[in-house]
Amino acid sequence: MVIRISSKHVIYSFSPLNKPVAYAKPKDIIVFETIDALGGQAKSEETPIDVIDWSRVNPATGPLFVETAEPGDTLVVDILDIKTDDKAVILVAPGYGVLHDKQFSPRIKLLYYEKDFVKFNSLDIEPKPMIGVIGVAPEEGEVATGSLGVHGGNMDIALLGRGSRLYLPVFTRGALLAIGDLHLVQGDGELCVSAAEVSGEVTVRVDIVKNKKPKYPILELNDKYAILTHGKTLDEAVYRASEAAVEALMKAHSLVFEEAYMLASLVVDLRINQVVDPFKGARAEIPKKYISIEDLFSQ
Amino acid sequence: MVIRISSKHVIYSFSPLNKPVAYAKPKDIIVFETIDALGGQAKSEETPIDVIDWSRVNPATGPLFVETAEPGDTLVVDILDIKTDDKAVILVAPGYGVLHDKQFSPRIKLLYYEKDFVKFNSLDIEPKPMIGVIGVAPEEGEVATGSLGVHGGNMDIALLGRGSRLYLPVFTRGALLAIGDLHLVQGDGELCVSAAEVSGEVTVRVDIVKNKKPKYPILELNDKYAILTHGKTLDEAVYRASEAAVEALMKAHSLVFEEAYMLASLVVDLRINQVVDPFKGARAEIPKKYISIEDLFSQ
Repeated sequence: MVIRISSKHVIYSFSPLNKPVAYAKPKDIIVFETIDALGGQAKSEETPIDVIDWSRVNPATGPLFVETAEPGDTLVVDILDIKTDDKAVILVAPGYGVLHDKQFSPRIKLLYYEKDFVKFNSLDIEPKPMIGVIGVAPEEGEVATGSLGVHGGNMDIALLGRGSRLYLPVFTRGALLAIGDLHLVQGDGELCVSAAEVSGEVTVRVDIVKNKKPKYPILELNDKYAILTHGKTLDEAVYRASEAAVEALMKAHSLVFEEAYMLASLVVDLRINQVVDPFKGARAEIPKKYISIEDLFSQ
Repeated sequence: MVIRISSKHVIYSFSPLNKPVAYAKPKDIIVFETIDALGGQAKSEETPIDVIDWSRVNPATGPLFVETAEPGDTLVVDILDIKTDDKAVILVAPGYGVLHDKQFSPRIKLLYYEKDFVKFNSLDIEPKPMIGVIGVAPEEGEVATGSLGVHGGNMDIALLGRGSRLYLPVFTRGALLAIGDLHLVQGDGELCVSAAEVSGEVTVRVDIVKNKKPKYPILELNDKYAILTHGKTLDEAVYRASEAAVEALMKAHSLVFEEAYMLASLVVDLRINQVVDPFKGARAEIPKKYISIEDLFSQ
């Protein structure tokens, strides 16, 4: 039986105090219906930016209580499918994005998914549907769904699409998973602050690894693992990703720090997730040839 | 006739005052024999770090005077082939690399290229030979070959291998191209400060585009262009790469800033070259579908 969570059930911050709206067991399949990052408020290109209620942006659907999940465990989320609407929206506004200090006007643009492409004026962009916001409740306090951290959140990772698997450390009973902010397509960086923001639904399978967890969220792809870090600056995010990659290589191959540091320089790719959210996001990609998921668990 | 430049002819800084050691015409093929980044000084794993003469690191072979090249032109360098020795070296030293503040010992490790792989202890690493240092004379002054800038230099780009093409702005008559610092393999970031440093030779074809040049060096691959930027921080390098990408998309599609900013967010990938040299290096990758080289010339 598939559990379905309606997009009526949204949160705007991840918190251990959020009340679960659905319950699942390990191995269950769940469909999260999601609303676009603007909360469906940008209905036309003429929508004035100043009528947008910013308290309603970045809605995440959930939270889902996953049975048996306890602090110190890992929540495993397999992204089985992503379906989206065929109308997406992208926006720019002064003060936002990498080029926040440039002189420009706020603008909203609608993007249509037609005949296998996202249309941008006369350009055909290949869609690569992905999840912008996915996370669990943090250890304490509340973290806005527009931000990110070791609990996940607004990680905006272009690679987080169908067929990928995410490992999230669990900080509270039931984990309290929530998902939102689908993008039809986004480049590494998400440089203008938004992507092809779209409503849709995500089908996932959840599972629990007991009594061990990674230091940061881990993305698993066909051929590699990516350690997902955040920082006030990109340099800080990259430092954390490098540190965690070197630690994992030490563990995987019983290396001293010096040798793992060298090996990382040869086989680890430092990459950018996004540079436009409250924290910058980076990742250290490590081919599976050099590491197993066990090496990425820190306890 | 192929022009060959011996590795006896090395420079340690790019400067318009350097005397050419060879002359070529547009379309000529030139072989640059290169010495590894340590100047061949690390002959064994027991070489003490403190006997290394740091004034002899990062030698670049050249410079080559390219006829007809004048300030305001572009030097086009096709990387036709890279051959390397089968013995490489990697080193770590406290104070260097992303994790410069960790407690660790200096260490040198030799890496052998055997049976199609770079051996790291019992690990087989797939070689991806690339050029660490490639550049022309800057407009004025001298820039150490260990640093980087709009003239190129120690860009340490893992993608700068066989089959790639580099566009460098010309600042001085003859351009004064120099090449060195081959790596048998390096990840994006080069996080420990060195890679599989190796001696070898690079075969290139040079050409000149008259009266126009890009704002930053441009790398051309099969399917994309990459704008190569530097900055005191990664965030600064990424800002410059984003700005140049948005400008190019405005030009390519006659877009206003707002729309080009949006398009960049969807189709441009911000990536990391290296985070360990005097300036950090980033790149903005733009698929050829969205841009031509003409759009990247700024004058």
